[in-house]
Amino acid sequence: MPSPTPRITALDTYDIRFPTSRSLDGSDAMNPDPDYSAAYLVLRTDAGDGLEGHGFAFTIGRGNDVQVAAIEALRAHVVGRSVAEVCDDPGSLNRALVGDSQLRWLGPEKGVMHMAVGAVVNAVWDLAAKRAGLPLWRLLAEADPAWLVAQVDFRYLSDALTPQEALSLLARAREGRGERAADLIARGYPGYTTSPGWLGYSDEKLARLAREAVAGGFTQIKLKVGADLADDIRRCRAARAAVGPDVRIALDANQRWDVAEAVSWTKALAEFDPYWIEEPTSPDDVLGHAAVRVAVAPVKVATGEHVQNRIVFKQLLQARAIDVLQLDAARVGGVNENLAILLLAAKFGVPVCPHAGGVGLCELVQHLSMFDYVALSGTYEDRVIEYVDHLHEHFLAPTVIRDGRYLAPTAPGFSAQMRGDSIAAYTYPSGGFWAADLPSGARV
Amino acid sequence: MPSPTPRITALDTYDIRFPTSRSLDGSDAMNPDPDYSAAYLVLRTDAGDGLEGHGFAFTIGRGNDVQVAAIEALRAHVVGRSVAEVCDDPGSLNRALVGDSQLRWLGPEKGVMHMAVGAVVNAVWDLAAKRAGLPLWRLLAEADPAWLVAQVDFRYLSDALTPQEALSLLARAREGRGERAADLIARGYPGYTTSPGWLGYSDEKLARLAREAVAGGFTQIKLKVGADLADDIRRCRAARAAVGPDVRIALDANQRWDVAEAVSWTKALAEFDPYWIEEPTSPDDVLGHAAVRVAVAPVKVATGEHVQNRIVFKQLLQARAIDVLQLDAARVGGVNENLAILLLAAKFGVPVCPHAGGVGLCELVQHLSMFDYVALSGTYEDRVIEYVDHLHEHFLAPTVIRDGRYLAPTAPGFSAQMRGDSIAAYTYPSGGFWAADLPSGARV
Repeated sequence: MPSPTPRITALDTYDIRFPTSRSLDGSDAMNPDPDYSAAYLVLRTDAGDGLEGHGFAFTIGRGNDVQVAAIEALRAHVVGRSVAEVCDDPGSLNRALVGDSQLRWLGPEKGVMHMAVGAVVNAVWDLAAKRAGLPLWRLLAEADPAWLVAQVDFRYLSDALTPQEALSLLARAREGRGERAADLIARGYPGYTTSPGWLGYSDEKLARLAREAVAGGFTQIKLKVGADLADDIRRCRAARAAVGPDVRIALDANQRWDVAEAVSWTKALAEFDPYWIEEPTSPDDVLGHAAVRVAVAPVKVATGEHVQNRIVFKQLLQARAIDVLQLDAARVGGVNENLAILLLAAKFGVPVCPHAGGVGLCELVQHLSMFDYVALSGTYEDRVIEYVDHLHEHFLAPTVIRDGRYLAPTAPGFSAQMRGDSIAAYTYPSGGFWAADLPSGARV
Repeated sequence: MPSPTPRITALDTYDIRFPTSRSLDGSDAMNPDPDYSAAYLVLRTDAGDGLEGHGFAFTIGRGNDVQVAAIEALRAHVVGRSVAEVCDDPGSLNRALVGDSQLRWLGPEKGVMHMAVGAVVNAVWDLAAKRAGLPLWRLLAEADPAWLVAQVDFRYLSDALTPQEALSLLARAREGRGERAADLIARGYPGYTTSPGWLGYSDEKLARLAREAVAGGFTQIKLKVGADLADDIRRCRAARAAVGPDVRIALDANQRWDVAEAVSWTKALAEFDPYWIEEPTSPDDVLGHAAVRVAVAPVKVATGEHVQNRIVFKQLLQARAIDVLQLDAARVGGVNENLAILLLAAKFGVPVCPHAGGVGLCELVQHLSMFDYVALSGTYEDRVIEYVDHLHEHFLAPTVIRDGRYLAPTAPGFSAQMRGDSIAAYTYPSGGFWAADLPSGARV
């Protein structure tokens, strides 16, 4: 029998790992052998409606167990709460999680503990959107602006963005919302693809995949660089030859360089007309990015997948250190903090091109960009969502790409829910895949 | 029988928690109820010499188990290594830990995973110093400058500090080293005390402890502020009246404010002649600290206990955002990264006044400041180590304070080793103290 006041009754966790390192998918200058993984959680309730909230932090293998432990440390904040209260105001839970006076010491608001907060908060938004019967992008785009602003934690932001300014930005975008939503549903949101550009691929595979990307409708591709300059020159030449002059080629150094090397290396590749250089140096180095940006223009500077929170994004914008802001759905404190980041980007007029790939990140970030298009920035201009064609088959509502664009999700929720058989098979180390595999001695 | 090539045979971990919240010791504007804790580890070897390496990350209660899990994730990098190789070159292990291509995703170099690296690296230095028969400060102060420079990871630093500059800074301090070591041994290193200033204490207790601090030889005390301005004015007045005009009173806001509030609140307390304002805002906000510093001068700006790594310290120095650099022994990646931070501070001419207190932090940081005095900065001027009189009794070689100064440790090692009976009693939740306490229902 359904409870009269439904409560969250369980926060169950799963250590899910995929053996992606075996095919060099995802190999770059700093991450040669990722095993894409999810520290995954399910919120269960006694509402009797069959709805669950799913969320996860993305990791690349070892340490996924640490990430799971961090999510479990938040259980006491969640279990027992009223489903309606949490779903009507996820911001209140977000503040409680970020503000836990003892757990806060482990960050604050960064790294393993903050990604755990993001995973739990995102699971709440998944549940809230399912209860509303809406895909998350639509729930956000149709929400009252004042309620959206109340979802944002402005602590440490007020020197760059006030609640009043946030409200004005959202109010400005009220006009034309309906038309944009209709256009989005009809055409989808522009994507770009990183699938051709992993460092571990041969030049032939790179060129073939680049041509296939263009044939598939993508107008931008991305190559990993930074391990060897001669290789990078050869690979950029091959890619440019494959796609012609009109397709944008972004480069991604994955934090490989110090400032001076970032400048010289990027300049050495300038003849291939790169569109942006991504993560030229440490994601913590606001001033370093600002120095690189001045030196490598007109090549743009992009970063964000490892930017730990809104406070660092704020400074990247204040210091004019980036041309492109690459938010990540599972790095920061969840949807609430990403609302803050989208509002900051809108205030500073910097386009948001989310980081995706890994496992499930494409599924999540599309909702954030689509909300942004319909109800905040109001434009697709210079905005693209990263797309990588890996592991989508494990999700109940996988991303759908048509002509290089993300089609708008229609299923209620945050597209975060993994298939039950995938969870069972890839739970580490006890799931079916690993139990069969581990005795071979191939992995520890 | 000792092994011919001794190896590290075990990395054992302990979740150790002390019930400090019960007395409001350690209460401040952001951390009202800390239970000082250590995610503690012991490196054991088959050398047969009875020596172990001890290290820990400091936390304030909940989440100490997550921190322990992060340390355990590093075990495979450590166990099986040659003791001699690791102790002769801790920098090599440091790079291996920071550079683990999968674990790196959980930071990089920040939060739980980075503190775990620091705990393990510090345990190696404890073992190295014990094997050398020297207190760590002395091992570092007597080390070859080229070897010390090789211990530093310059990645992401080269725009601010090169290995050549680091070598020059150390070479400059060669002269007078012997005299300074003798002076240090005779007089000790200046300290200041935070014991009077916790938010939870009454004005009477504050004034009494402040007078006792001055009588005990301290020339600087610190008060926690930031919860309530009227309270802070009253408490500052009481403290100034208690200590007179010549004792420095530092203020600590523990990240409570946004930029504008940090400026207005600090100015409202200026009549009490505060020496520095500590953590006026988010530790991630380099530009925010720079703005506060310009606005509140001549009150100095101090920060560091939550600064995640050398890259953020680099920017705080580049942006002239701080007057006082407060390194922490257990927040960053261990002694190696703190060498980088001390070198950066020396390059920029900013005094280092380490954060301490908690559990075991005084024991650790004294070694870093003493090395700095003898072999790098060469001066005590405007340099003080924080001192809090809590929990020292749990260490084999606790800090010794005389006339407000830290006496130089003489026991070999990093002073990191906790007493066996303390470990047994305070291991959570199975140790004797907690096993007796938990059934009362007072703690979960």
